[in-house]
Amino acid sequence: MKYSTIGYILGQVLKFEGIFMLLPFLTGMIYHENEAYSYLIIGIICFVLGCLITLKKVKHPQIFNREGFVAVALSWIVLSIFGAIPFVITGEIPSYVDALFETISGFTTTGASILSNVEALTHTSLMWRSFTHWVGGMGVLVFIMSFLPLMGGSTINLMKAESPGPSVSRLVPHVKDTAKILYRIYLVITIIEIVLLCIFGMPMFDSLTLTFGTVGTGGFGIHNDSIAGYSPVLQNIITVFMILSGVNYVAYFYIMTKQLKEIFKVEEIRVYFGIILGAGTFIALNIRSLYGSLGEAFRHAFFQVGSIITTCGYATTDFDLWPETSKMILVLLMFIGACAGSTGGGFKISRLLILCKAIPKQLSLVIHPREVKVIRMDGKPIDHNTLRSTNVYLAIYFFILLVSTLLISVDNFNLTTNFTAVASTLNNIGPGLDGVGPTRNFGMYSDFSKFVLMFDMLAGRLELYPLLILFMPSLWRRK
Amino acid sequence: MKYSTIGYILGQVLKFEGIFMLLPFLTGMIYHENEAYSYLIIGIICFVLGCLITLKKVKHPQIFNREGFVAVALSWIVLSIFGAIPFVITGEIPSYVDALFETISGFTTTGASILSNVEALTHTSLMWRSFTHWVGGMGVLVFIMSFLPLMGGSTINLMKAESPGPSVSRLVPHVKDTAKILYRIYLVITIIEIVLLCIFGMPMFDSLTLTFGTVGTGGFGIHNDSIAGYSPVLQNIITVFMILSGVNYVAYFYIMTKQLKEIFKVEEIRVYFGIILGAGTFIALNIRSLYGSLGEAFRHAFFQVGSIITTCGYATTDFDLWPETSKMILVLLMFIGACAGSTGGGFKISRLLILCKAIPKQLSLVIHPREVKVIRMDGKPIDHNTLRSTNVYLAIYFFILLVSTLLISVDNFNLTTNFTAVASTLNNIGPGLDGVGPTRNFGMYSDFSKFVLMFDMLAGRLELYPLLILFMPSLWRRK
Repeated sequence: MKYSTIGYILGQVLKFEGIFMLLPFLTGMIYHENEAYSYLIIGIICFVLGCLITLKKVKHPQIFNREGFVAVALSWIVLSIFGAIPFVITGEIPSYVDALFETISGFTTTGASILSNVEALTHTSLMWRSFTHWVGGMGVLVFIMSFLPLMGGSTINLMKAESPGPSVSRLVPHVKDTAKILYRIYLVITIIEIVLLCIFGMPMFDSLTLTFGTVGTGGFGIHNDSIAGYSPVLQNIITVFMILSGVNYVAYFYIMTKQLKEIFKVEEIRVYFGIILGAGTFIALNIRSLYGSLGEAFRHAFFQVGSIITTCGYATTDFDLWPETSKMILVLLMFIGACAGSTGGGFKISRLLILCKAIPKQLSLVIHPREVKVIRMDGKPIDHNTLRSTNVYLAIYFFILLVSTLLISVDNFNLTTNFTAVASTLNNIGPGLDGVGPTRNFGMYSDFSKFVLMFDMLAGRLELYPLLILFMPSLWRRK
Repeated sequence: MKYSTIGYILGQVLKFEGIFMLLPFLTGMIYHENEAYSYLIIGIICFVLGCLITLKKVKHPQIFNREGFVAVALSWIVLSIFGAIPFVITGEIPSYVDALFETISGFTTTGASILSNVEALTHTSLMWRSFTHWVGGMGVLVFIMSFLPLMGGSTINLMKAESPGPSVSRLVPHVKDTAKILYRIYLVITIIEIVLLCIFGMPMFDSLTLTFGTVGTGGFGIHNDSIAGYSPVLQNIITVFMILSGVNYVAYFYIMTKQLKEIFKVEEIRVYFGIILGAGTFIALNIRSLYGSLGEAFRHAFFQVGSIITTCGYATTDFDLWPETSKMILVLLMFIGACAGSTGGGFKISRLLILCKAIPKQLSLVIHPREVKVIRMDGKPIDHNTLRSTNVYLAIYFFILLVSTLLISVDNFNLTTNFTAVASTLNNIGPGLDGVGPTRNFGMYSDFSKFVLMFDMLAGRLELYPLLILFMPSLWRRK
């Protein structure tokens, strides 16, 4: 393994984290909060440390699969370790474990919080908390790649490891250009939402933070009742942008290049909107009696369906009080997740599609053993590697899900709480049901359980493989 | 498809069901219960109907994969439809849907009941209820095969479809002889348990019914408190026989042929006993404070671990009151299940082993993409087909699990109840947690939900494929 290459990448990550911390610093300056200086100091430390590490240029910068995965896993860990420090220094989250939980929850766009009262945080820390969603949403290394001529042509392996979904599509021949296009689209969507929210009467600070949470599909709010306090129009705007953020970014590339017809040819996107429409309508009718009008029921239903399927995690109402069928649909949506190549988490629609197509093929093989049947997606055959990798992904996914639920059961909360806590963190959603429902938080768990859930958040965001291979002895063996 | 062959097999099944009903009839005669005549009448009807159907010999009796799966699926359905009738005629279970639920639960060796008071049943019906476990445990068609020179050499396809596990091992060259050996072992184990229970003071009727429930890993009891009322010695005997019934029957074949060393070479058996030992010891220490002595805690822990991992489902204590970690271990054991080639249900240890071996292989491929690594089980390489079939099995399994939980959520019971109800029926266990815990029953569910759970029980016992291919349109298409 090329340790020097990985070190160099980690150095770059630290430098950028230092720069990122200027945003909360500036926010604090505007609101005259002394907490701002903590972010300035830690930011400078990160930047200087990063500069020192990257001082020595790497001679033969080659990133193979291996280096790509390790660099991505370690980058996210380093990012979180340093990102958590200001919360402790400002005294807003006194326990470092809690601060780390909150930061990992931010970067992985989970949005699960240990805070019972977010309104007690300063504007400075609220801004940092939400900004981590934005940074984590599209990916830190993708961001860095779009700025620096990092490692020549082999950076595709970094992107493969960081981008969600079973395969990565280069929009244009050069990876660096693909990264740039992705961030440009991301920026445009962000700006449009901020402007729209401001126009319809949301204060600037709220618009910024909530937009970061929406487009990054994170879900950290700035009020204890999440989004419930805002007007129906603002809630609907957020619904639309949540759903748009769960779409495969290839769609926006098609819009940019005026190939509108192509969008509807992408099976994943069709299924994504189909599920949202079906689930939203069903839930709206199911919860009809709980709300004043059918319109209100539809607003809450679609907000929550959009929030859960994109793994954003905002709430406009306490869905833990909904009928069991509606709650179970939300649990299923937790697992399905958003499109590959979006900022959302979960198992991903494309993986689900691949599995759903493999099932009738296997059944058909039982009836006609000599039949040769190829599974296709968007008309193209799915190769054997993708299929096997998706199958094993499912196995690892459920393995982590069940073992994590077992591990956190030591705190003796009930099965629904533990199971949805793990489902919610592994899928990067935020709230679960019962003890971790939308009006509750994760503060009651022990430090041990918090570490399990932190692992789940990182594993979920990085899609299992990068984090797990760190535990493979053969990775660290020198040849 | 050879409809005549399938019809012939169904006829044979009906004939045997008629004969099976003699046992409850004789029991009823002994206890002077008039209900006995219901079983006699239905038994005669089944037998005559079976004879009429099998009157015409099949000309070219060829059983391909397809016919094997369809015949097995339909046999189990026919068996249950007729087996349920006496419960209704005697008036002991007035609703036919309930009676069907109870009968499917019996044949599939699930042991989930809709009865709140089993003690109200006659000896006749209690015997039939328990005897269905014994018939279903080793498989009806395997039983018939061991008697009749059914279809020449192609009967292996019937066995493949009915026997649990990812692959079927012929113990001896001829399938018919294999079936005979299996039933001989089954009978010997049954007799030993009955004798032991009688020696240690259990009444004959109890010994018979509980032994049927143990060796078939069914779990229907004859008392409302399941096994709790019996002495510790009797409970321990049942523990041992439950665990022995979850072992791959290949082990007993090795004992028969004096190849004792071979047993411990079978990975599945080693892992099976390892899990039981680990889980039992952990739970015993975890529930220590709830019981009078460590010995009592160990007795309850190992009874329950044995009962759940073999998917038997008996209870000596209300484990719903145990700490969450112990409960979660039981939930995990529900999914793991017993060895392939045993009478137990669940996902099966061998499938779990295959998946666990596929995970590091896939991770290793990420680090060393050009590496060629073969997965081995008991020293032999696992072929590509078994691996793919196991992977897809997992996908279908979770698909049915989640969709079933969604469907029965219409009855508005909570997530823990619904989830463990489905887990318990799909894995053929019996009790779940909360609303379907060991002191509760399935009677509160609507008929719709009962049908969903019946489907799950059959799907679980027949290991998904036979039941699912009935829904493939290409199966019924005439060429």
